Amino acid sequence: MTDEATAFVPGHITGFFSAHPADDPSAAGSRGAGITLSHGVDVRVRRGDARDDHDESGPAVALNGDAVEIDAVGAVLRELDATDAVVTAETPLPLGAGFGVSGALALGTAYAVNAVYDARQTENGLVGIAHRAEVEAGTGLGDVVAQARGGLPIRLDPGGPDHGRLDGVPASPRVEYVTFGSVSTEAVLSGDTDALTAAGERALADLREDPTTERFVALSRRFASEADLLTDRVAEAVADVRDAGGDAAMAMLGDTVFAFGDGLSAAGYDPAVCSVHAAGATLRSESD
Amino acid sequence: MTDEATAFVPGHITGFFSAHPADDPSAAGSRGAGITLSHGVDVRVRRGDARDDHDESGPAVALNGDAVEIDAVGAVLRELDATDAVVTAETPLPLGAGFGVSGALALGTAYAVNAVYDARQTENGLVGIAHRAEVEAGTGLGDVVAQARGGLPIRLDPGGPDHGRLDGVPASPRVEYVTFGSVSTEAVLSGDTDALTAAGERALADLREDPTTERFVALSRRFASEADLLTDRVAEAVADVRDAGGDAAMAMLGDTVFAFGDGLSAAGYDPAVCSVHAAGATLRSESD
Repeated sequence: MTDEATAFVPGHITGFFSAHPADDPSAAGSRGAGITLSHGVDVRVRRGDARDDHDESGPAVALNGDAVEIDAVGAVLRELDATDAVVTAETPLPLGAGFGVSGALALGTAYAVNAVYDARQTENGLVGIAHRAEVEAGTGLGDVVAQARGGLPIRLDPGGPDHGRLDGVPASPRVEYVTFGSVSTEAVLSGDTDALTAAGERALADLREDPTTERFVALSRRFASEADLLTDRVAEAVADVRDAGGDAAMAMLGDTVFAFGDGLSAAGYDPAVCSVHAAGATLRSESD
Repeated sequence: MTDEATAFVPGHITGFFSAHPADDPSAAGSRGAGITLSHGVDVRVRRGDARDDHDESGPAVALNGDAVEIDAVGAVLRELDATDAVVTAETPLPLGAGFGVSGALALGTAYAVNAVYDARQTENGLVGIAHRAEVEAGTGLGDVVAQARGGLPIRLDPGGPDHGRLDGVPASPRVEYVTFGSVSTEAVLSGDTDALTAAGERALADLREDPTTERFVALSRRFASEADLLTDRVAEAVADVRDAGGDAAMAMLGDTVFAFGDGLSAAGYDPAVCSVHAAGATLRSESD
Protein backbone atom coordinates (compact mmCIF):
# COMPACT_ATOMS: atom_id res chain seq x y z
CA MET A 1 0.00 0.00 0.00
CA THR A 2 1.21 3.40 -0.95
CA ASP A 3 -0.30 6.87 -1.41
CA GLU A 4 1.17 7.36 -4.84
CA ALA A 5 2.51 5.17 -7.64
CA THR A 6 3.93 5.72 -11.12
CA ALA A 7 3.74 3.39 -14.10
CA PHE A 8 5.73 3.69 -17.32
CA VAL A 9 4.07 2.60 -20.55
CA PRO A 10 6.03 2.53 -23.82
CA GLY A 11 4.69 4.35 -26.86
CA HIS A 12 3.49 2.07 -29.66
CA ILE A 13 3.65 2.60 -33.40
CA THR A 14 1.42 0.25 -35.38
CA GLY A 15 2.90 -0.58 -38.79
CA PHE A 16 -0.10 -2.45 -40.17
CA PHE A 17 -3.33 -3.87 -38.80
CA SER A 18 -6.69 -5.45 -39.53
CA ALA A 19 -9.78 -4.38 -37.57
CA HIS A 20 -11.91 -7.01 -35.80
CA PRO A 21 -14.96 -5.47 -34.16
CA ALA A 22 -17.02 -7.58 -31.76
CA ASP A 23 -19.90 -6.96 -29.36
CA ASP A 24 -17.71 -8.03 -26.44
CA PRO A 25 -14.98 -5.39 -26.03
CA SER A 26 -12.67 -8.05 -24.54
CA ALA A 27 -12.84 -9.97 -27.82
CA ALA A 28 -12.79 -6.93 -30.13
CA GLY A 29 -9.45 -5.63 -31.30
CA SER A 30 -6.98 -5.77 -34.12
CA ARG A 31 -4.36 -8.06 -35.56
CA GLY A 32 -1.10 -6.63 -36.85
CA ALA A 33 2.41 -5.65 -35.86
CA GLY A 34 4.18 -2.67 -34.38
CA ILE A 35 7.05 -1.19 -32.40
CA THR A 36 7.05 -0.32 -28.70
CA LEU A 37 9.26 2.67 -27.94
CA SER A 38 11.57 3.74 -25.14
CA HIS A 39 9.71 7.05 -25.52
CA GLY A 40 6.53 6.52 -23.57
CA VAL A 41 4.21 7.87 -20.92
CA ASP A 42 4.84 8.15 -17.17
CA VAL A 43 1.51 7.98 -15.37
CA ARG A 44 1.40 9.02 -11.71
CA VAL A 45 -1.67 8.30 -9.61
CA ARG A 46 -2.37 9.62 -6.14
CA ARG A 47 -5.38 8.99 -4.01
CA GLY A 48 -7.67 12.04 -3.90
CA ASP A 49 -9.87 13.17 -1.03
CA ALA A 50 -13.34 11.68 -0.93
CA ARG A 51 -14.68 15.20 -1.50
CA ASP A 52 -12.64 15.32 -4.71
CA ASP A 53 -14.76 12.61 -6.34
CA HIS A 54 -14.64 13.52 -10.00
CA ASP A 55 -17.36 11.15 -11.17
CA GLU A 56 -19.68 13.99 -12.11
CA SER A 57 -17.22 16.56 -13.39
CA GLY A 58 -15.06 13.95 -15.12
CA PRO A 59 -11.81 12.51 -13.84
CA ALA A 60 -8.83 14.69 -12.90
CA VAL A 61 -6.28 13.90 -15.61
CA ALA A 62 -3.36 16.13 -16.60
CA LEU A 63 -1.03 15.43 -19.51
CA ASN A 64 2.20 17.47 -19.58
CA GLY A 65 0.56 19.96 -17.23
CA ASP A 66 -2.67 20.46 -19.20
CA ALA A 67 -6.05 19.06 -18.18
CA VAL A 68 -7.20 16.50 -20.76
CA GLU A 69 -10.31 14.39 -21.25
CA ILE A 70 -9.42 10.82 -22.19
CA ASP A 71 -12.54 8.66 -22.10
CA ALA A 72 -10.56 5.45 -21.62
CA VAL A 73 -8.90 6.78 -18.46
CA GLY A 74 -12.28 7.65 -16.94
CA ALA A 75 -13.53 4.14 -17.71
CA VAL A 76 -10.48 2.54 -16.05
CA LEU A 77 -10.98 4.65 -12.92
CA ARG A 78 -14.66 3.68 -12.72
CA GLU A 79 -13.86 -0.02 -13.22
CA LEU A 80 -11.30 0.06 -10.40
CA ASP A 81 -13.48 2.16 -8.02
CA ALA A 82 -10.98 4.99 -8.04
CA THR A 83 -12.92 7.94 -9.43
CA ASP A 84 -11.35 10.22 -6.79
CA ALA A 85 -7.84 9.46 -8.13
CA VAL A 86 -5.64 12.26 -9.43
CA VAL A 87 -3.79 11.21 -12.61
CA THR A 88 -0.75 13.19 -13.75
CA ALA A 89 1.05 12.06 -16.90
CA GLU A 90 4.19 13.18 -18.68
CA THR A 91 5.30 12.21 -22.18
CA PRO A 92 7.55 13.44 -25.00
CA LEU A 93 5.10 11.87 -27.50
CA PRO A 94 2.40 13.88 -29.31
CA LEU A 95 -1.26 12.92 -28.80
CA GLY A 96 -3.20 11.73 -31.87
CA ALA A 97 -0.11 11.14 -34.01
CA GLY A 98 0.04 7.34 -33.95
CA PHE A 99 1.98 6.62 -30.75
CA GLY A 100 -0.75 5.03 -28.66
CA VAL A 101 -0.72 7.78 -26.05
CA SER A 102 -4.38 7.23 -25.12
CA GLY A 103 -3.76 3.50 -24.68
CA ALA A 104 -0.69 4.26 -22.58
CA LEU A 105 -2.69 6.59 -20.35
CA ALA A 106 -5.38 3.93 -19.85
CA LEU A 107 -2.88 1.14 -19.13
CA GLY A 108 -0.59 3.25 -16.93
CA THR A 109 -3.60 4.44 -14.94
CA ALA A 110 -4.66 0.81 -14.41
CA TYR A 111 -1.19 -0.23 -13.14
CA ALA A 112 -0.74 2.77 -10.86
CA VAL A 113 -4.31 2.65 -9.47
CA ASN A 114 -3.86 -1.06 -8.72
CA ALA A 115 -0.87 -0.21 -6.53
CA VAL A 116 -2.41 2.80 -4.76
CA TYR A 117 -5.90 1.37 -4.23
CA ASP A 118 -4.75 -2.21 -3.53
CA ALA A 119 -7.04 -3.48 -6.26
CA ARG A 120 -5.46 -6.97 -6.28
CA GLN A 121 -5.52 -7.44 -10.04
CA THR A 122 -3.01 -9.51 -11.97
CA GLU A 123 -1.26 -7.96 -14.96
CA ASN A 124 -3.69 -9.66 -17.36
CA GLY A 125 -6.57 -8.25 -15.33
CA LEU A 126 -5.22 -4.72 -15.63
CA VAL A 127 -4.48 -5.10 -19.35
CA GLY A 128 -7.99 -6.41 -19.93
CA ILE A 129 -9.55 -3.42 -18.13
CA ALA A 130 -7.48 -0.93 -20.14
CA HIS A 131 -8.09 -2.76 -23.44
CA ARG A 132 -11.88 -2.75 -22.96
CA ALA A 133 -11.82 0.92 -21.97
CA GLU A 134 -9.84 1.85 -25.10
CA VAL A 135 -12.05 -0.23 -27.42
CA GLU A 136 -15.26 1.24 -25.96
CA ALA A 137 -13.86 4.77 -26.29
CA GLY A 138 -13.11 4.03 -29.95
CA THR A 139 -9.57 5.40 -29.62
CA GLY A 140 -7.64 2.20 -30.30
CA LEU A 141 -7.90 -1.53 -30.91
CA GLY A 142 -4.48 -3.04 -30.35
CA ASP A 143 -2.21 -0.54 -28.62
CA VAL A 144 -2.92 -1.66 -25.06
CA VAL A 145 -2.02 -5.34 -25.50
CA ALA A 146 1.09 -4.38 -27.47
CA GLN A 147 2.15 -1.83 -24.83
CA ALA A 148 1.70 -4.45 -22.12
CA ARG A 149 4.13 -6.76 -23.95
CA GLY A 150 6.98 -4.56 -25.18
CA GLY A 151 9.45 -5.35 -27.97
CA LEU A 152 8.21 -5.55 -31.56
CA PRO A 153 4.77 -7.07 -30.93
CA ILE A 154 2.91 -9.20 -33.45
CA ARG A 155 -0.78 -9.41 -32.58
CA LEU A 156 -1.80 -12.87 -33.81
CA ASP A 157 -5.40 -12.61 -32.64
CA PRO A 158 -7.58 -9.65 -31.76
CA GLY A 159 -8.70 -8.94 -28.22
CA GLY A 160 -7.53 -8.64 -24.64
CA PRO A 161 -5.38 -11.12 -22.70
CA ASP A 162 -8.12 -13.76 -22.47
CA HIS A 163 -8.55 -13.77 -26.24
CA GLY A 164 -5.49 -12.56 -28.14
CA ARG A 165 -2.17 -14.30 -28.52
CA LEU A 166 0.97 -12.28 -29.15
CA ASP A 167 4.32 -13.02 -30.75
CA GLY A 168 7.27 -10.77 -31.55
CA VAL A 169 10.07 -9.96 -33.97
CA PRO A 170 13.35 -10.78 -32.13
CA ALA A 171 15.36 -7.56 -32.62
CA SER A 172 16.39 -4.41 -30.73
CA PRO A 173 16.90 -1.71 -33.38
CA ARG A 174 17.26 2.03 -32.99
CA VAL A 175 14.08 3.88 -34.06
CA GLU A 176 13.73 7.28 -35.73
CA TYR A 177 10.47 9.17 -36.28
CA VAL A 178 9.15 12.53 -37.50
CA THR A 179 5.61 13.73 -36.79
CA PHE A 180 3.86 16.14 -39.15
CA GLY A 181 0.45 16.10 -37.44
CA SER A 182 -2.63 14.12 -36.49
CA VAL A 183 -4.94 11.60 -38.14
CA SER A 184 -8.23 10.75 -36.40
CA THR A 185 -8.23 7.10 -35.32
CA GLU A 186 -11.96 7.32 -34.60
CA ALA A 187 -12.71 8.55 -38.15
CA VAL A 188 -10.75 5.71 -39.80
CA LEU A 189 -12.07 2.98 -37.50
CA SER A 190 -15.68 4.13 -37.86
CA GLY A 191 -15.47 4.08 -41.69
CA ASP A 192 -15.39 1.09 -44.07
CA THR A 193 -12.41 -1.00 -42.98
CA ASP A 194 -12.76 -3.93 -45.43
CA ALA A 195 -9.91 -2.96 -47.77
CA LEU A 196 -7.73 -1.98 -44.83
CA THR A 197 -8.36 -5.30 -43.10
CA ALA A 198 -7.61 -7.34 -46.23
CA ALA A 199 -4.30 -5.48 -46.65
CA GLY A 200 -3.48 -5.95 -42.96
CA GLU A 201 -4.13 -9.69 -43.09
CA ARG A 202 -1.80 -10.05 -46.09
CA ALA A 203 0.96 -8.13 -44.32
CA LEU A 204 0.61 -10.24 -41.17
CA ALA A 205 0.84 -13.52 -43.09
CA ASP A 206 3.94 -12.26 -44.91
CA LEU A 207 5.65 -11.04 -41.73
CA ARG A 208 5.17 -14.41 -40.04
CA GLU A 209 7.07 -16.02 -42.93
CA ASP A 210 10.01 -13.64 -42.51
CA PRO A 211 9.90 -11.96 -39.08
CA THR A 212 12.66 -9.37 -39.47
CA THR A 213 12.79 -5.60 -39.00
CA GLU A 214 13.53 -5.03 -42.72
CA ARG A 215 10.46 -7.00 -43.73
CA PHE A 216 8.32 -5.25 -41.11
CA VAL A 217 9.09 -1.81 -42.56
CA ALA A 218 8.53 -2.95 -46.15
CA LEU A 219 5.19 -4.57 -45.28
CA SER A 220 4.10 -1.49 -43.29
CA ARG A 221 4.95 0.71 -46.28
CA ARG A 222 2.92 -1.56 -48.59
CA PHE A 223 -0.01 -1.58 -46.13
CA ALA A 224 -0.30 2.22 -45.91
CA SER A 225 -0.46 2.37 -49.67
CA GLU A 226 -2.93 -0.53 -50.13
CA ALA A 227 -5.17 0.77 -47.33
CA ASP A 228 -5.08 4.24 -48.91
CA LEU A 229 -4.02 5.88 -45.66
CA LEU A 230 -0.72 7.43 -46.77
CA THR A 231 -0.57 11.18 -46.21
CA ASP A 232 1.28 13.43 -48.67
CA ARG A 233 3.98 14.40 -46.19
CA VAL A 234 4.63 10.81 -45.11
CA ALA A 235 4.74 9.70 -48.77
CA GLU A 236 7.34 12.37 -49.50
CA ALA A 237 9.47 11.40 -46.47
CA VAL A 238 9.28 7.70 -47.35
CA ALA A 239 10.45 8.50 -50.90
CA ASP A 240 13.33 10.58 -49.51
CA VAL A 241 14.46 7.77 -47.20
CA ARG A 242 14.30 5.23 -50.02
CA ASP A 243 16.28 7.55 -52.30
CA ALA A 244 18.96 7.62 -49.59
CA GLY A 245 19.10 3.80 -49.56
CA GLY A 246 16.92 3.17 -46.49
CA ASP A 247 13.30 2.29 -45.89
CA ALA A 248 10.49 3.94 -43.92
CA ALA A 249 6.75 3.67 -43.33
CA MET A 250 3.79 5.41 -41.72
CA ALA A 251 2.60 5.13 -38.11
CA MET A 252 -1.02 3.92 -37.90
CA LEU A 253 -2.76 6.25 -37.29
CA GLY A 254 -0.90 9.52 -37.40
CA ASP A 255 0.80 11.85 -39.85
CA THR A 256 4.07 10.29 -38.71
CA VAL A 257 6.91 8.56 -40.57
CA PHE A 258 9.25 6.04 -38.89
CA ALA A 259 12.42 4.18 -39.83
CA PHE A 260 14.92 1.86 -38.17
CA GLY A 261 18.62 2.66 -37.81
CA ASP A 262 19.50 6.04 -39.32
CA GLY A 263 16.98 5.94 -42.17
CA LEU A 264 15.49 9.41 -41.62
CA SER A 265 18.64 11.22 -40.50
CA ALA A 266 20.58 9.82 -43.49
CA ALA A 267 17.89 11.36 -45.73
CA GLY A 268 18.42 14.79 -44.18
CA TYR A 269 15.57 14.80 -41.65
CA ASP A 270 15.98 15.76 -37.99
CA PRO A 271 14.06 12.89 -36.37
CA ALA A 272 13.31 12.07 -32.76
CA VAL A 273 15.49 9.08 -31.86
CA CYS A 274 14.72 6.29 -29.42
CA SER A 275 15.02 2.52 -29.14
CA VAL A 276 12.68 -0.44 -28.99
CA HIS A 277 11.47 -0.88 -25.40
CA ALA A 278 12.14 -4.49 -24.46
CA ALA A 279 9.64 -4.51 -21.60
CA GLY A 280 5.94 -3.76 -21.50
CA ALA A 281 4.17 -1.51 -19.01
CA THR A 282 5.82 -1.54 -15.60
CA LEU A 283 5.27 -0.07 -12.20
CA ARG A 284 8.20 2.18 -11.36
CA SER A 285 10.07 0.88 -8.32
CA GLU A 286 10.38 3.32 -5.44
CA SER A 287 14.09 3.76 -6.09
CA ASP A 288 13.62 4.72 -9.77
CA MET B 1 22.98 -10.48 -40.82
CA THR B 2 25.89 -10.28 -38.49
CA ASP B 3 28.85 -12.49 -37.51
CA GLU B 4 28.17 -12.28 -33.82
CA ALA B 5 25.22 -11.50 -31.57
CA THR B 6 24.57 -11.37 -27.84
CA ALA B 7 21.32 -12.06 -26.02
CA PHE B 8 20.55 -11.28 -22.38
CA VAL B 9 18.26 -13.63 -20.49
CA PRO B 10 17.15 -12.82 -16.92
CA GLY B 11 17.67 -15.37 -14.16
CA HIS B 12 14.46 -16.95 -12.85
CA ILE B 13 13.63 -18.06 -9.34
CA THR B 14 10.58 -20.33 -9.14
CA GLY B 15 8.68 -19.88 -5.87
CA PHE B 16 6.24 -22.76 -6.33
CA PHE B 17 5.20 -25.07 -9.14
CA SER B 18 3.27 -28.13 -10.22
CA ALA B 19 4.77 -30.59 -12.71
CA HIS B 20 2.81 -31.52 -15.85
CA PRO B 21 4.65 -34.13 -17.91
CA ALA B 22 3.41 -34.92 -21.43
CA ASP B 23 4.66 -36.96 -24.37
CA ASP B 24 4.85 -33.81 -26.49
CA PRO B 25 7.63 -31.62 -25.03
CA SER B 26 5.84 -28.51 -26.35
CA ALA B 27 2.87 -29.34 -24.13
CA ALA B 28 4.87 -30.58 -21.14
CA GLY B 29 5.89 -28.08 -18.49
CA SER B 30 4.89 -26.64 -15.17
CA ARG B 31 2.43 -24.21 -13.69
CA GLY B 32 3.51 -21.87 -10.94
CA ALA B 33 4.99 -18.47 -10.22
CA GLY B 34 8.41 -16.90 -9.95
CA ILE B 35 10.68 -13.89 -10.18
CA THR B 36 12.82 -12.89 -13.16
CA LEU B 37 16.01 -11.15 -12.09
CA SER B 38 18.15 -8.31 -13.39
CA HIS B 39 20.98 -10.78 -12.68
CA GLY B 40 20.99 -13.03 -15.71
CA VAL B 41 23.04 -14.60 -18.45
CA ASP B 42 24.69 -12.89 -21.42
CA VAL B 43 24.97 -15.39 -24.26
CA ARG B 44 27.25 -14.52 -27.17
CA VAL B 45 27.14 -16.60 -30.35
CA ARG B 46 29.58 -16.42 -33.22
CA ARG B 47 29.58 -18.42 -36.40
CA GLY B 48 32.28 -21.10 -36.39
CA ASP B 49 34.22 -22.49 -39.34
CA ALA B 50 32.62 -25.40 -41.14
CA ARG B 51 35.59 -27.49 -40.02
CA ASP B 52 34.70 -26.62 -36.41
CA ASP B 53 31.46 -28.60 -36.60
CA HIS B 54 31.00 -29.81 -33.04
CA ASP B 55 28.18 -32.23 -33.75
CA GLU B 56 30.32 -35.23 -32.86
CA SER B 57 32.44 -33.84 -30.07
CA GLY B 58 29.55 -31.86 -28.58
CA PRO B 59 28.89 -28.16 -28.96
CA ALA B 60 31.44 -25.49 -28.02
CA VAL B 61 29.90 -23.82 -24.97
CA ALA B 62 31.81 -21.84 -22.35
CA LEU B 63 30.25 -20.45 -19.17
CA ASN B 64 32.32 -17.85 -17.30
CA GLY B 65 35.39 -19.10 -19.17
CA ASP B 66 34.93 -22.81 -18.46
CA ALA B 67 33.78 -25.39 -21.02
CA VAL B 68 30.40 -26.78 -19.97
CA GLU B 69 28.05 -29.44 -21.32
CA ILE B 70 24.46 -28.22 -21.29
CA ASP B 71 22.29 -30.70 -23.18
CA ALA B 72 19.58 -28.11 -23.91
CA VAL B 73 22.07 -25.84 -25.67
CA GLY B 74 23.22 -28.65 -27.95
CA ALA B 75 19.59 -29.42 -28.81
CA VAL B 76 18.90 -25.75 -29.68
CA LEU B 77 21.96 -25.63 -31.96
CA ARG B 78 20.88 -28.81 -33.76
CA GLU B 79 17.31 -27.54 -34.18
CA LEU B 80 18.57 -24.28 -35.72
CA ASP B 81 21.24 -25.96 -37.92
CA ALA B 82 24.03 -24.15 -36.12
CA THR B 83 26.15 -26.95 -34.67
CA ASP B 84 29.31 -25.09 -35.70
CA ALA B 85 28.36 -22.09 -33.51
CA VAL B 86 30.63 -20.98 -30.70
CA VAL B 87 28.64 -20.06 -27.56
CA THR B 88 30.27 -17.96 -24.85
CA ALA B 89 28.20 -17.07 -21.78
CA GLU B 90 28.81 -14.92 -18.73
CA THR B 91 26.71 -14.79 -15.57
CA PRO B 92 26.97 -13.81 -11.90
CA LEU B 93 24.47 -16.58 -11.07
CA PRO B 94 25.50 -20.04 -9.83
CA LEU B 95 24.55 -23.12 -11.89
CA GLY B 96 22.22 -25.67 -10.26
CA ALA B 97 21.12 -23.34 -7.47
CA GLY B 98 17.60 -22.49 -8.66
CA PHE B 99 18.20 -19.53 -11.00
CA GLY B 100 17.29 -21.14 -14.32
CA VAL B 101 20.80 -20.79 -15.75
CA SER B 102 20.40 -23.80 -18.04
CA GLY B 103 17.12 -22.40 -19.38
CA ALA B 104 18.77 -19.02 -19.88
CA LEU B 105 21.62 -20.63 -21.83
CA ALA B 106 19.16 -22.47 -24.08
CA LEU B 107 16.98 -19.40 -24.67
CA GLY B 108 19.87 -16.97 -25.13
CA THR B 109 21.49 -19.36 -27.59
CA ALA B 110 18.26 -19.51 -29.59
CA TYR B 111 17.97 -15.69 -29.77
CA ALA B 112 21.60 -15.10 -30.67
CA VAL B 113 21.76 -17.96 -33.22
CA ASN B 114 18.60 -16.62 -34.89
CA ALA B 115 20.38 -13.31 -35.48
CA VAL B 116 23.72 -14.74 -36.64
CA TYR B 117 22.36 -17.58 -38.80
CA ASP B 118 19.35 -15.61 -40.14
CA ALA B 119 17.03 -18.38 -38.95
CA ARG B 120 13.88 -16.26 -39.45
CA GLN B 121 12.09 -17.41 -36.33
CA THR B 122 9.62 -15.28 -34.38
CA GLU B 123 10.11 -14.88 -30.63
CA ASN B 124 7.50 -17.59 -29.92
CA GLY B 125 9.36 -19.89 -32.32
CA LEU B 126 12.64 -19.38 -30.44
CA VAL B 127 10.99 -19.79 -27.04
CA GLY B 128 9.33 -23.01 -28.21
CA ILE B 129 12.66 -24.44 -29.40
CA ALA B 130 14.39 -23.61 -26.10
CA HIS B 131 11.45 -24.88 -24.01
CA ARG B 132 11.40 -28.25 -25.79
CA ALA B 133 15.18 -28.56 -25.47
CA GLU B 134 15.05 -27.87 -21.73
CA VAL B 135 12.14 -30.28 -21.13
CA GLU B 136 13.81 -33.05 -23.10
CA ALA B 137 17.08 -32.52 -21.23
CA GLY B 138 15.13 -32.87 -17.95
CA THR B 139 16.73 -29.72 -16.54
CA GLY B 140 13.63 -27.54 -16.25
CA LEU B 141 9.92 -27.28 -16.98
CA GLY B 142 8.93 -23.64 -16.72
CA ASP B 143 12.04 -21.44 -16.63
CA VAL B 144 12.23 -20.77 -20.36
CA VAL B 145 8.70 -19.39 -20.83
CA ALA B 146 9.09 -17.29 -17.67
CA GLN B 147 12.48 -15.96 -18.80
CA ALA B 148 10.99 -15.03 -22.17
CA ARG B 149 8.33 -12.92 -20.43
CA GLY B 150 10.12 -11.09 -17.61
CA GLY B 151 8.56 -9.50 -14.53
CA LEU B 152 6.99 -11.74 -11.89
CA PRO B 153 5.58 -14.45 -14.17
CA ILE B 154 2.57 -16.58 -13.29
CA ARG B 155 2.46 -19.70 -15.45
CA LEU B 156 -1.26 -20.39 -15.82
CA ASP B 157 -0.83 -23.43 -18.07
CA PRO B 158 2.10 -25.75 -18.68
CA GLY B 159 3.96 -25.81 -21.98
CA GLY B 160 5.59 -23.65 -24.60
CA PRO B 161 4.10 -20.58 -26.30
CA ASP B 162 1.56 -22.57 -28.33
CA HIS B 163 0.17 -24.15 -25.17
CA GLY B 164 0.82 -22.13 -22.05
CA ARG B 165 -0.72 -18.83 -21.04
CA LEU B 166 1.12 -16.48 -18.73
CA ASP B 167 0.09 -13.73 -16.35
CA GLY B 168 2.08 -11.65 -13.88
CA VAL B 169 2.13 -9.95 -10.50
CA PRO B 170 2.24 -6.18 -11.19
CA ALA B 171 5.18 -5.06 -9.01
CA SER B 172 8.85 -4.09 -9.29
CA PRO B 173 10.45 -4.94 -5.94
CA ARG B 174 14.10 -5.17 -4.98
CA VAL B 175 15.24 -8.81 -4.60
CA GLU B 176 17.79 -10.30 -2.18
CA TYR B 177 19.12 -13.86 -2.28
CA VAL B 178 21.74 -16.09 -0.62
CA THR B 179 22.87 -19.39 -2.13
CA PHE B 180 24.15 -22.21 0.06
CA GLY B 181 24.53 -24.86 -2.67
CA SER B 182 22.81 -27.03 -5.26
CA VAL B 183 19.73 -29.22 -5.42
CA SER B 184 19.36 -31.59 -8.38
CA THR B 185 16.35 -30.57 -10.49
CA GLU B 186 16.59 -33.86 -12.38
CA ALA B 187 16.40 -35.91 -9.15
CA VAL B 188 13.30 -34.07 -7.91
CA LEU B 189 11.51 -34.06 -11.26
CA SER B 190 12.20 -37.76 -11.89
CA GLY B 191 10.79 -38.74 -8.46
CA ASP B 192 7.16 -38.86 -7.28
CA THR B 193 5.80 -35.35 -7.83
CA ASP B 194 2.17 -35.90 -6.73
CA ALA B 195 2.40 -34.15 -3.35
CA LEU B 196 4.52 -31.37 -4.86
CA THR B 197 2.00 -30.83 -7.64
CA ALA B 198 -0.98 -30.73 -5.27
CA ALA B 199 0.82 -28.13 -3.13
CA GLY B 200 1.76 -26.12 -6.22
CA GLU B 201 -1.81 -26.07 -7.52
CA ARG B 202 -3.08 -24.80 -4.15
CA ALA B 203 -0.47 -22.02 -4.11
CA LEU B 204 -1.34 -20.97 -7.66
CA ALA B 205 -5.06 -20.75 -6.93
CA ASP B 206 -4.34 -18.67 -3.82
CA LEU B 207 -1.95 -16.30 -5.61
CA ARG B 208 -4.50 -15.59 -8.33
CA GLU B 209 -6.94 -14.44 -5.61
CA ASP B 210 -4.37 -12.01 -4.18
CA PRO B 211 -1.56 -11.34 -6.68
CA THR B 212 0.87 -9.37 -4.52
CA THR B 213 4.55 -9.82 -3.71
CA GLU B 214 3.80 -10.40 -0.01
CA ARG B 215 1.39 -13.21 -0.85
CA PHE B 216 3.83 -14.71 -3.39
CA VAL B 217 6.56 -15.08 -0.74
CA ALA B 218 4.16 -16.50 1.85
CA LEU B 219 2.77 -19.06 -0.63
CA SER B 220 6.28 -20.00 -1.79
CA ARG B 221 7.29 -20.58 1.84
CA ARG B 222 4.23 -22.77 2.40
CA PHE B 223 4.90 -24.70 -0.81
CA ALA B 224 8.50 -25.61 0.10
CA SER B 225 7.27 -26.97 3.39
CA GLU B 226 4.26 -28.88 2.00
CA ALA B 227 6.32 -30.32 -0.87
CA ASP B 228 8.99 -31.39 1.65
CA LEU B 229 11.76 -29.67 -0.29
CA LEU B 230 12.99 -27.23 2.35
CA THR B 231 16.70 -27.62 3.11
CA ASP B 232 18.02 -27.08 6.63
CA ARG B 233 19.99 -24.01 5.70
CA VAL B 234 17.08 -22.36 3.86
CA ALA B 235 14.74 -23.22 6.78
CA GLU B 236 17.13 -21.52 9.19
CA ALA B 237 17.45 -18.41 7.01
CA VAL B 238 13.67 -18.15 6.54
CA ALA B 239 13.23 -18.35 10.32
CA ASP B 240 15.84 -15.62 10.81
CA VAL B 241 14.13 -13.30 8.29
CA ARG B 242 10.74 -13.88 9.91
CA ASP B 243 12.20 -13.19 13.36
CA ALA B 244 13.42 -9.86 11.98
CA GLY B 245 9.89 -9.01 10.79
CA GLY B 246 10.27 -9.95 7.12
CA ASP B 247 9.44 -12.97 5.02
CA ALA B 248 11.50 -15.26 2.78
CA ALA B 249 11.22 -18.51 0.83
CA MET B 250 13.24 -21.10 -1.11
CA ALA B 251 14.18 -21.01 -4.79
CA MET B 252 12.91 -24.07 -6.67
CA LEU B 253 15.19 -25.94 -7.08
CA GLY B 254 18.32 -24.84 -5.29
CA ASP B 255 19.70 -24.48 -1.80
CA THR B 256 18.87 -20.78 -2.11
CA VAL B 257 16.79 -18.40 0.02
CA PHE B 258 15.20 -15.23 -1.41
CA ALA B 259 13.34 -12.22 -0.03
CA PHE B 260 11.93 -8.94 -1.33
CA GLY B 261 13.04 -5.55 -0.05
CA ASP B 262 15.72 -5.82 2.66
CA GLY B 263 14.41 -9.05 4.22
CA LEU B 264 17.75 -10.90 4.29
CA SER B 265 20.04 -7.96 5.02
CA ALA B 266 17.78 -6.83 7.90
CA ALA B 267 18.24 -10.32 9.38
CA GLY B 268 22.03 -9.99 9.30
CA TYR B 269 22.76 -11.84 6.05
CA ASP B 270 25.00 -10.51 3.27
CA PRO B 271 22.79 -11.23 0.25
CA ALA B 272 23.28 -10.64 -3.45
CA VAL B 273 20.96 -7.75 -4.39
CA CYS B 274 19.19 -7.19 -7.70
CA SER B 275 15.80 -6.14 -9.02
CA VAL B 276 12.96 -7.70 -10.94
CA HIS B 277 13.76 -7.63 -14.67
CA ALA B 278 10.78 -6.04 -16.39
CA ALA B 279 11.63 -7.48 -19.82
CA GLY B 280 12.12 -11.02 -20.99
CA ALA B 281 15.00 -12.30 -23.10
CA THR B 282 16.31 -9.69 -25.53
CA LEU B 283 18.87 -9.42 -28.21
CA ARG B 284 21.45 -6.82 -27.19
CA SER B 285 21.44 -3.90 -29.58
CA GLU B 286 24.75 -3.13 -31.25
CA SER B 287 25.20 0.02 -29.16
CA ASP B 288 24.80 -1.79 -25.80
